[in-house]
Amino acid sequence: MRMRNKSWAKPLIENCNEFVVHEPSNMAGKWKQQLKCSELHLEIGCGKGDYWVLMADKHPECGWIGIEKNPNVAAIAIKKRIENPKSNALFIVDDAKDIENWFNQGELKVIHLNFSDPWPKKAHNKRRLSHAGFLNKYGNLLEAQGMIIMKTDNRSLFEFSLLEFAQNKWQLIEVNVDFRSEVQEDVISEYEQKFIDLNQPIYRAIWKKI
Amino acid sequence: MRMRNKSWAKPLIENCNEFVVHEPSNMAGKWKQQLKCSELHLEIGCGKGDYWVLMADKHPECGWIGIEKNPNVAAIAIKKRIENPKSNALFIVDDAKDIENWFNQGELKVIHLNFSDPWPKKAHNKRRLSHAGFLNKYGNLLEAQGMIIMKTDNRSLFEFSLLEFAQNKWQLIEVNVDFRSEVQEDVISEYEQKFIDLNQPIYRAIWKKI
Repeated sequence: MRMRNKSWAKPLIENCNEFVVHEPSNMAGKWKQQLKCSELHLEIGCGKGDYWVLMADKHPECGWIGIEKNPNVAAIAIKKRIENPKSNALFIVDDAKDIENWFNQGELKVIHLNFSDPWPKKAHNKRRLSHAGFLNKYGNLLEAQGMIIMKTDNRSLFEFSLLEFAQNKWQLIEVNVDFRSEVQEDVISEYEQKFIDLNQPIYRAIWKKI
Repeated sequence: MRMRNKSWAKPLIENCNEFVVHEPSNMAGKWKQQLKCSELHLEIGCGKGDYWVLMADKHPECGWIGIEKNPNVAAIAIKKRIENPKSNALFIVDDAKDIENWFNQGELKVIHLNFSDPWPKKAHNKRRLSHAGFLNKYGNLLEAQGMIIMKTDNRSLFEFSLLEFAQNKWQLIEVNVDFRSEVQEDVISEYEQKFIDLNQPIYRAIWKKI
């Protein structure tokens, strides 16, 4: 998702101390305490924050952490969070490649990957959030019964991901090749709704560590 | 696929001794010798036989065995085979549940499952050709580097199969959620072409034993 530079984005992020975590490595091991929850959910690449905010509203018993590296996009997510002051949700504006510094081993219950950048060129496949390099990091951060939930409209990314998880000791536990959010615990972002309106398939899968 | 009873079907099958194998258990361990090949392919549920005959034409270096239990459908496949007298292809009209009696351990290179009956009711899932009960049988019959290739238009069957293989120690090695037969070694049956013409997705996956 390309975004024009927003002059207000960086000041908004820098001045938001209530739920934007500026030094996430200082929080490792303390997130559950901070969010007063026993179940920690992390969305990586949460874009404009629809899913992150809606899920936090729907499941206030859980803690919700969103990561988005693009400040111009993250700022939109942060505005939505400001409009939902009661949300049990924190935000990190940074690149997920450093994720292992931000959480302790086994600290997370669920990692959500929604409509991640497909990085279509093969030379860039290490940047895909479902590349083995990332999967190994996620594996360390998830608790024993932890899982990864992925939704995407991108066929190639989905096919790549099914193979990458299968070849890196993750157990597929749910899969949908035309997901219509019939699952009650899920929500639909504005971005997802566009594909539904166009009658294009949404792909979804859930994996747990073996 | 429901078919009207054909009065000519059973006599055709019974009188065809050249390539219909009436007692397949007598052939266990001898198929490669009979078909003069080092690579044995088996299609289970080959319906009207398009894929089986076209693949045998395309890959005469391999041996091709088709199984279809419905005599009224099998008879159509057999007619196609009669029109292709040089095909390196044999046929079994019987229920694949007895497959372990017909082949020795490690005798097969590839098992093909094309547009298998989805058996949509959950109570019938043991009848699906990708149910764990069948997968265990296939595992015994395939050689060490052997694989299973599945194509289907049926979303539920495909999702069920991805899970069933993943949970029964099969390694996913290829997957397509909108397969367009770009793969040179493949052929398109009349049945598959109908879905392509309707612009409906074909799902395809390949697994090998772990």
